[in-house]
Amino acid sequence: MENPLKNQVIIDGLQYCNWNRSMFEDALKGGLTAIHATLVYWENTQESFKKIEDWKKLIQTNNDILCHANNTKDIFKAKEENKLAIIFGFQNSAPIANDIFLIEKFFLEGLRFMQLTYNNQTALAGGCFEKNDSGISRFGNEVIKEMNRLGMVIDLSHAGKKTCLDAIDLSSKPVAISHANPIFFHNSKRNIDDEVLIKLSDKGGFIGLSLYPYHLKDNSDCKLEEFCEMIKKLIDMIGLEHIGIGSDLCINWDDNVVMWMRNGKWTKEIDYGESVSKNTSWPKQPSWFQKGSDIINIFYGLKKIGINEDDIFKILGMNWINFMKKNFG
Amino acid sequence: MENPLKNQVIIDGLQYCNWNRSMFEDALKGGLTAIHATLVYWENTQESFKKIEDWKKLIQTNNDILCHANNTKDIFKAKEENKLAIIFGFQNSAPIANDIFLIEKFFLEGLRFMQLTYNNQTALAGGCFEKNDSGISRFGNEVIKEMNRLGMVIDLSHAGKKTCLDAIDLSSKPVAISHANPIFFHNSKRNIDDEVLIKLSDKGGFIGLSLYPYHLKDNSDCKLEEFCEMIKKLIDMIGLEHIGIGSDLCINWDDNVVMWMRNGKWTKEIDYGESVSKNTSWPKQPSWFQKGSDIINIFYGLKKIGINEDDIFKILGMNWINFMKKNFG
Repeated sequence: MENPLKNQVIIDGLQYCNWNRSMFEDALKGGLTAIHATLVYWENTQESFKKIEDWKKLIQTNNDILCHANNTKDIFKAKEENKLAIIFGFQNSAPIANDIFLIEKFFLEGLRFMQLTYNNQTALAGGCFEKNDSGISRFGNEVIKEMNRLGMVIDLSHAGKKTCLDAIDLSSKPVAISHANPIFFHNSKRNIDDEVLIKLSDKGGFIGLSLYPYHLKDNSDCKLEEFCEMIKKLIDMIGLEHIGIGSDLCINWDDNVVMWMRNGKWTKEIDYGESVSKNTSWPKQPSWFQKGSDIINIFYGLKKIGINEDDIFKILGMNWINFMKKNFG
Repeated sequence: MENPLKNQVIIDGLQYCNWNRSMFEDALKGGLTAIHATLVYWENTQESFKKIEDWKKLIQTNNDILCHANNTKDIFKAKEENKLAIIFGFQNSAPIANDIFLIEKFFLEGLRFMQLTYNNQTALAGGCFEKNDSGISRFGNEVIKEMNRLGMVIDLSHAGKKTCLDAIDLSSKPVAISHANPIFFHNSKRNIDDEVLIKLSDKGGFIGLSLYPYHLKDNSDCKLEEFCEMIKKLIDMIGLEHIGIGSDLCINWDDNVVMWMRNGKWTKEIDYGESVSKNTSWPKQPSWFQKGSDIINIFYGLKKIGINEDDIFKILGMNWINFMKKNFG
């Protein structure tokens, strides 16, 4: 049977994997056209430029199946050429330090998504793990203007609620929460409450729904049906066009990497992040979403609960395209 | 007539000057024993290590009149040898970026004071120019523990009110506001309200009183008598032992440096900082405090309003020594 995603533009709005060629091949074979890949969390400016260089080399080395997407045209071209397009993103603003001029330098290197915060407060904004969320700071306000000017997507994943509301207000372009779920589905610091979801979508914003266990009802044991029913409910709440997938798939890493994500170099004591049970390992992915190509399971899951194919294809890709167009064209 | 400060330990708790040999000589001749010198504002890690290196060279080149103080013993030794002791400080946490391990590295290079913020929010805390002061963040909390462990002074100048209150609470060692004045003397974002002053002193903390025009009643036209009366009132409020001088003397700089202090690289538009009239130049120092050696005028001013000499000497030096002892020994 032919893969029903084969002729569609399918996008995963966030993955952080320890990539190798067979993983790229799996994603491509599974119907994925583009992946927004996380390059850094806590890395400083120099380390972040190096990560971009490393990714460009990786893409070059595998340029028969990969390309680097700077805009949505590049994504369509990848589809034509049967390649997987990689969109560069940072999950923190650590790389720009206190320097607004670095945003353009990273943009020129192909960066298209940047989070303002990663759990913790930054000079720009408040993180979702802070007791007091500052909202957008003076520097954050300047950064938003600069990201808007360039067309770099303001990603509010891992931000606090006040920061989300402020950024949605301040940004002249629609903003994204690239990887999170609604709190009505699963209550966690990383998930998003109704007020933010409604305001986000009212201003043309976007949410990529996450398959990271800590964002899911019953974590690793979450059922595909429940995930799909959540999508249905969210469509009713904010409208189909604001919804996509940002799987937050993190695979093929050693456990020290999940500890790096949580702790960076900001604490000498262990911070367990989203793991309430203080687990120092990666959480187990749900059985139906173990790898890039498993996005097909979401297609079938949504179909089973009565969403029509056209709408499913929008959720799995074209909605992201339309959102990205409004930022980086 | 002999300088009455000659046999005393006299300390200026903050200066940021474009130093040359004749300025060091003036300070020394004027009776100063030690100056807490600001090395950086917005400089990143690498630039900050370079500034330390530059300062060490400057001290080495002038080691007949200068020495680098790592503790209060070094200050007393400087007094014996008729040298001016320089204490290193940062007016921001930009140099440590997101890396808690850098604090010890800077401490080992001789850093003894670090501000958590400079007007703006940082990853650690809220600045006095922010609309919403976050208070101490998760990272800020870890930084305070590390600075306490090492004995590096937590300097709350340029921090917001909530940040000040949080830091005073959280710190196991007394904290300083190295250069600011009470709001009861002059209402400005940089000055300190009664609640903070009382809580600060209740926990053994310290304020260095500022001669920077924007912190003074009537700015550049502030009268010496008024400044001294403010000190008298503050003694009654929080007690003599919590009070010193942190003149914030900034001399011999081009105007581009005051703009650097205000703008760093965090904004593409001009921020005028404390200048309500949008002045892009350095403010004019009051006539009675133009250079390091003018600290003698404060001695005579305090004497004139009836403060006894022993108490004046404490304010001009020994109080700082006793405070510093509780941090870096």
